[in-house]
Amino acid sequence: MTTLEPFFRVLDLLGVFVFAISGSIAAARKNMDVYGSVILAVVTALGGGMIRDSLLGRTPAGAFVDPLYLLVALAGAVSVFFLYNLLGKLHYPMRYMDAIGLGVFTVTGMIIALDQDVFWFGAVMLGVISGTGGGMIRDVLCQQVPLVLEREIYAVAGILGALLTLVMLRLGLGASLSAAIGALVISSIRILSVQRDWHLPRAVWQKPGSRKI
Amino acid sequence: MTTLEPFFRVLDLLGVFVFAISGSIAAARKNMDVYGSVILAVVTALGGGMIRDSLLGRTPAGAFVDPLYLLVALAGAVSVFFLYNLLGKLHYPMRYMDAIGLGVFTVTGMIIALDQDVFWFGAVMLGVISGTGGGMIRDVLCQQVPLVLEREIYAVAGILGALLTLVMLRLGLGASLSAAIGALVISSIRILSVQRDWHLPRAVWQKPGSRKI
Amino acid sequence: MTTLEPFFRVLDLLGVFVFAISGSIAAARKNMDVYGSVILAVVTALGGGMIRDSLLGRTPAGAFVDPLYLLVALAGAVSVFFLYNLLGKLHYPMRYMDAIGLGVFTVTGMIIALDQDVFWFGAVMLGVISGTGGGMIRDVLCQQVPLVLEREIYAVAGILGALLTLVMLRLGLGASLSAAIGALVISSIRILSVQRDWHLPRAVWQKPGSRKI
Repeated sequence: MTTLEPFFRVLDLLGVFVFAISGSIAAARKNMDVYGSVILAVVTALGGGMIRDSLLGRTPAGAFVDPLYLLVALAGAVSVFFLYNLLGKLHYPMRYMDAIGLGVFTVTGMIIALDQDVFWFGAVMLGVISGTGGGMIRDVLCQQVPLVLEREIYAVAGILGALLTLVMLRLGLGASLSAAIGALVISSIRILSVQRDWHLPRAVWQKPGSRKI
Repeated sequence: MTTLEPFFRVLDLLGVFVFAISGSIAAARKNMDVYGSVILAVVTALGGGMIRDSLLGRTPAGAFVDPLYLLVALAGAVSVFFLYNLLGKLHYPMRYMDAIGLGVFTVTGMIIALDQDVFWFGAVMLGVISGTGGGMIRDVLCQQVPLVLEREIYAVAGILGALLTLVMLRLGLGASLSAAIGALVISSIRILSVQRDWHLPRAVWQKPGSRKI
Repeated sequence: MTTLEPFFRVLDLLGVFVFAISGSIAAARKNMDVYGSVILAVVTALGGGMIRDSLLGRTPAGAFVDPLYLLVALAGAVSVFFLYNLLGKLHYPMRYMDAIGLGVFTVTGMIIALDQDVFWFGAVMLGVISGTGGGMIRDVLCQQVPLVLEREIYAVAGILGALLTLVMLRLGLGASLSAAIGALVISSIRILSVQRDWHLPRAVWQKPGSRKI
């Protein structure tokens, strides 16, 4: 693997932390024990980045080379035990944590891909895969329909923020600032869409009276 | 990644197109919105090739390097909106599209593997993984038992066609012709097996009166 | 890929064999036909190692380069037909086979990772991923909650055995002996935990009267 700039490493670790919390909450809802909860937290937190690194050939994947990744994932899992009452005050604690992770991982994933000479189009796609991959594994292991496939705005937020980040990079805004703004925009759109129940339009087959194929 | 011959790129893109349609139909059946449908189409269309490239170390995976892959996947997803009534005329629209994708991806996957000096045995296996991987991800995300595990003839068709392609290659028939025939044979066997409800024999534990373990 | 020492190759192939049996039994429980059963056996047997090799960049993945892997996986699948009555005498045939595979793959995965200069922490994690990955794919394809997320001791056994193996390696005990003892310890802890119904402590949210988030 190539080394990340300190700023992107911190961003990436923030994503690891919040995704670990989201995995831990998902485990709680499925009545898993402490260990199932830690495992699901770690898989959710590190899964997206591992898929990203395998697809890019940035191997051994970062999580195996930089010890902080696993430590931060474990810290996220453990923090749920202490933050349990605080998290319960949020309306959708799992979705909010997932939203922050989505924002951060989409942007860091895209920047790592650009750094490996992937063209912009592919870098946006890799960003979205990084941002949604861990949550997708979490939901599949918990036998839920993945968030990314639901009617709320999810990957759309990632794509919009990734494109915005690209524009800022081209305008010469500096990688760290562009990434921070991009991640903030993605997380905000996603959180707002959960709070306000924003949906995308229905498809042909969902119109009243339409025939199923 | 290494560059594909133009003919194999076209074949590969055909597979991407039909798998995108199959993903889009699967989404329709699960009442997903436009976006869920596009996401599922893209994941189904590009997933098998991404697994193939990661396993071969042909990285960054082709879909990130060649912009046509994502564009064709999106075109497949969008085309369902226009072809909706036409597809509805087919008895099993999702399975037919999946059958074409299976044929094409099995053959291109095998040829890419041979090109990377994988021995014939492993190349057949990688072909089958490429041909079935995208559909497997689609079915897992939709919480269906994957087609590949059902009683109909599916991966068997892939293996037979891959072996046939290998024989034709050894006989010096030319890579493009062998691939085209191989893909056609796989898709035809699969489509016939769906139409005629061909099954493989039952297993020991399915015989009447057998004991479960 | 790098070549494994003969001893580790034998260990790895043992894991392939028992995981193939576990996949075949899982297929039997889901009433799959002969072919579904062989496919599930092969995926379970080779899946963990493929994930391991992709994450390490040890590509093309071992299973595509060494023909014995697929042959042994097929042998495991076929052996279920002959060992059906014998396996039925075990109380938990699938879990026992899975336990042996867990032990063997965790240790070989860790040693392969150490060999690729992954630090000890990451190597333990990669070992656990190798040991649990195939079973996780098996359970997801069968639409079961993965064993690794259940309340019994599972990945904990892998971590303990991996750490023990590391200590023995540092003490200069020799790679083969350390690996054999480590694998034995993991499989034994896991089998005992299934037989005696050992659990990990309940989590905060599972205490009586606790609130769900």
